[in-house]
Amino acid sequence: MRVVVPFAAETPKTRLESVLSPAERSQFARAMLADVLRAIVRAGHEPAVVSTAPLDLAALEMPGEVAAATSLTVDDRPLTEAVNARLPADAGDDPVAVVMADLALATPDALEELLTAGADVAIAPGRGGGTNALVVDQPDFRVDYHGLSYLDHRGIAREVGATLETVDSFRLGTDIDEPADLVEVLVHGRESDRAPAILREFGFELERRDGRVAAVRDGGPTAE
Amino acid sequence: MRVVVPFAAETPKTRLESVLSPAERSQFARAMLADVLRAIVRAGHEPAVVSTAPLDLAALEMPGEVAAATSLTVDDRPLTEAVNARLPADAGDDPVAVVMADLALATPDALEELLTAGADVAIAPGRGGGTNALVVDQPDFRVDYHGLSYLDHRGIAREVGATLETVDSFRLGTDIDEPADLVEVLVHGRESDRAPAILREFGFELERRDGRVAAVRDGGPTAE
Repeated sequence: MRVVVPFAAETPKTRLESVLSPAERSQFARAMLADVLRAIVRAGHEPAVVSTAPLDLAALEMPGEVAAATSLTVDDRPLTEAVNARLPADAGDDPVAVVMADLALATPDALEELLTAGADVAIAPGRGGGTNALVVDQPDFRVDYHGLSYLDHRGIAREVGATLETVDSFRLGTDIDEPADLVEVLVHGRESDRAPAILREFGFELERRDGRVAAVRDGGPTAE
Repeated sequence: MRVVVPFAAETPKTRLESVLSPAERSQFARAMLADVLRAIVRAGHEPAVVSTAPLDLAALEMPGEVAAATSLTVDDRPLTEAVNARLPADAGDDPVAVVMADLALATPDALEELLTAGADVAIAPGRGGGTNALVVDQPDFRVDYHGLSYLDHRGIAREVGATLETVDSFRLGTDIDEPADLVEVLVHGRESDRAPAILREFGFELERRDGRVAAVRDGGPTAE
């Protein structure tokens, strides 16, 4: 299946600005993108990166088969428009998946669960009412990523008569936006993943404090 | 399967004190407990509530078959000790599950996924490295809920030679601890659930602000 991966190439991950410099945020966002693309390819699908600006895919240093399966388009429209331009438009069109580039915990298994859901629209919600990943196999459904997109997408599916399935996944439900989310990358990232490796290079580690866990950098507290 | 549900009856949900009074926290914690017990019974299992203090189960006003299947013990020891006293101790013992009482989004399907995992130890992790639910089918494994319990439990399983499976569930991964978590109850709670109903009685509703979603009470901002 074609899996669209929108990527904000210019100022990614601004909500991490209290713990990462602009250059580090860019590096970290690209590491997460590389991990997501690899998981998609390992699940047997073809990622189509849709970037807001030109992007050097070679610099991501992905394994050969991942790089070979990945395409890149630049589209500077807002997220909702850029995604809607790529959804099925006619009854016979193939289904299209959309997976956010900051789902650092995504694994081939978790993605497969979503991609084989079978409903006209399948959604993996994120925290705070977001839509972290979805599959659309219906020509009338369109996304709207503003605000409470998970509930909005349920409403849109109802309106156009599409069946809907919610995919229950902690891994797909965890998008990495805020300092507290870095804990999840360090706890659940796998050996071969780039994103946890780069956080450790930056000096982050897990620390237990007052019965809770924080991602701490170079000895100082940064992200609970 | 016997499903232990530990419950802190006296001062539940202290991290919600900025948005709920002590009486409201107590009511809300009991509503979540009732929802969790019902999901366990609907999945075909028997909940064993282990409460830190006497608890009036009848006041939870659960459906008859849920009340009939639920047992109650008072055990004022710390969580780790109270749970370990109830895990399998001998090779022939039945498996035991432990499900936290604040998993307000738990559904029979999500629980069934955990309860049929099949490994010696199956864990549904929560955010921040926590252990929200687990199943133990091995006589040497013991829990330790302090700090990074998910990684600790993986280590303990390795030490005692137990196979381990991590169950990937957004619903079981969402424990309701902090004001921001109330959004999840309002977004993902189902019609028949008590916890979202009681939050709405208290005056909470979802509000979209700056592209994000908050649980807002009586018009004022409270929980992002």
